[in-house]
Amino acid sequence: MIVFYTDDFLGNTATLHASESKHCNVVLRKKPGDLIYVINGQGLLAEGRILSQDKKTTSIEIVSRENFPIGRYRGIAICPTKNMSRFEFFLEKATEIGINNIFPILCTRSERKILKPQRLEKILLSAAKQSINYHLPILHPLQTFTDFVKKMEDNDFDKFIGHYKEDNPELFDLIGNEKEKLVVIGPEGDFTESELSLASSSGFVTVNLSKSRLRTETAGIVASSFICV
Amino acid sequence: MIVFYTDDFLGNTATLHASESKHCNVVLRKKPGDLIYVINGQGLLAEGRILSQDKKTTSIEIVSRENFPIGRYRGIAICPTKNMSRFEFFLEKATEIGINNIFPILCTRSERKILKPQRLEKILLSAAKQSINYHLPILHPLQTFTDFVKKMEDNDFDKFIGHYKEDNPELFDLIGNEKEKLVVIGPEGDFTESELSLASSSGFVTVNLSKSRLRTETAGIVASSFICV
Repeated sequence: MIVFYTDDFLGNTATLHASESKHCNVVLRKKPGDLIYVINGQGLLAEGRILSQDKKTTSIEIVSRENFPIGRYRGIAICPTKNMSRFEFFLEKATEIGINNIFPILCTRSERKILKPQRLEKILLSAAKQSINYHLPILHPLQTFTDFVKKMEDNDFDKFIGHYKEDNPELFDLIGNEKEKLVVIGPEGDFTESELSLASSSGFVTVNLSKSRLRTETAGIVASSFICV
Repeated sequence: MIVFYTDDFLGNTATLHASESKHCNVVLRKKPGDLIYVINGQGLLAEGRILSQDKKTTSIEIVSRENFPIGRYRGIAICPTKNMSRFEFFLEKATEIGINNIFPILCTRSERKILKPQRLEKILLSAAKQSINYHLPILHPLQTFTDFVKKMEDNDFDKFIGHYKEDNPELFDLIGNEKEKLVVIGPEGDFTESELSLASSSGFVTVNLSKSRLRTETAGIVASSFICV
């Protein structure tokens, strides 16, 4: 099943713009009268008939709609990696697996201090379409670890921070319930002791994600697969 | 901790070759007398002193050795993806996470029918060094799905095949024991009905890996993270 994305819905019509319109008309050669599926990234799946096309827009008459609930909260906070393609790979995989909130964070030892969200949003959209995920993950703005942890302090989620120590509990053993979940993944150089102690005093449980030493993006993907079960 | 790899051990000496030697001498500027760590990819971690260096080789006198057991069997059989970088990403992540046997397989709907193992072995080695994994995964030769399933028929492992159906059990719910484990992941176009029924009659349990539709390489990484817990 191929789905197109737009946030431009008005009454009984929807309009595809730019690359979505091109994909529909040029790549897949859809014609007026053809039925296609459209999502809005917020739970809506609509079926519609193409009314008219030009180079940059496609008008669609909606013939049926279905709304999908978002499901429980599954969040990953993560330090963007120095190598951007590794971070992008994490975003794609987390979206496919079903993460719905992504918090890029800035730690003391972060190597990447700036993010351009526009390209990242495209990766999320493409992964959501590929895996037929009706809800686009929310990509929150980059913020400091301290700000993030303090904001989450009064939150009743199951909150975890990944940091390997031999006698830490395993994340895998702590997720067998239906509560909302949030896992924090550190930078290539790991968290500082004071970051770990701030997280701990804010209700984050320190866990091992794996028996091996994982790269940042791998840790993010492994944590995603556990909390999306 | 930085480790170097060689399979060239003789009595109390070891020799680094080619890229490992260059990494040691040129990139990290190690000198005769320096202590370094060396692995052989089969469980050995040795500490040694550099005796002599030239452009392509580094001779090391071993001063101590430790052997690490391989741990239980954790295998993934998977169809190489059309886009090679996606398959390489799977290999890197599976190695980091701790998979020790990888079986590339050829299914009816496989899009990639040829593999060049040399480059793939380099990826495994690099990932094993990065995650300080003393055992290099074994990359088996490409074989047909039918041959693979028949070879595994009499094997007493917990054997699974990933194929989404609403009432299938979840892999996550079936892995809470210490048995050897093997998961088969299909091609982009999924398994055929006759492949699924052959696997089933050979003792493979059909499971869902996730609530979402996953790409081949994502399915491989998610399955790896579950069976390496």
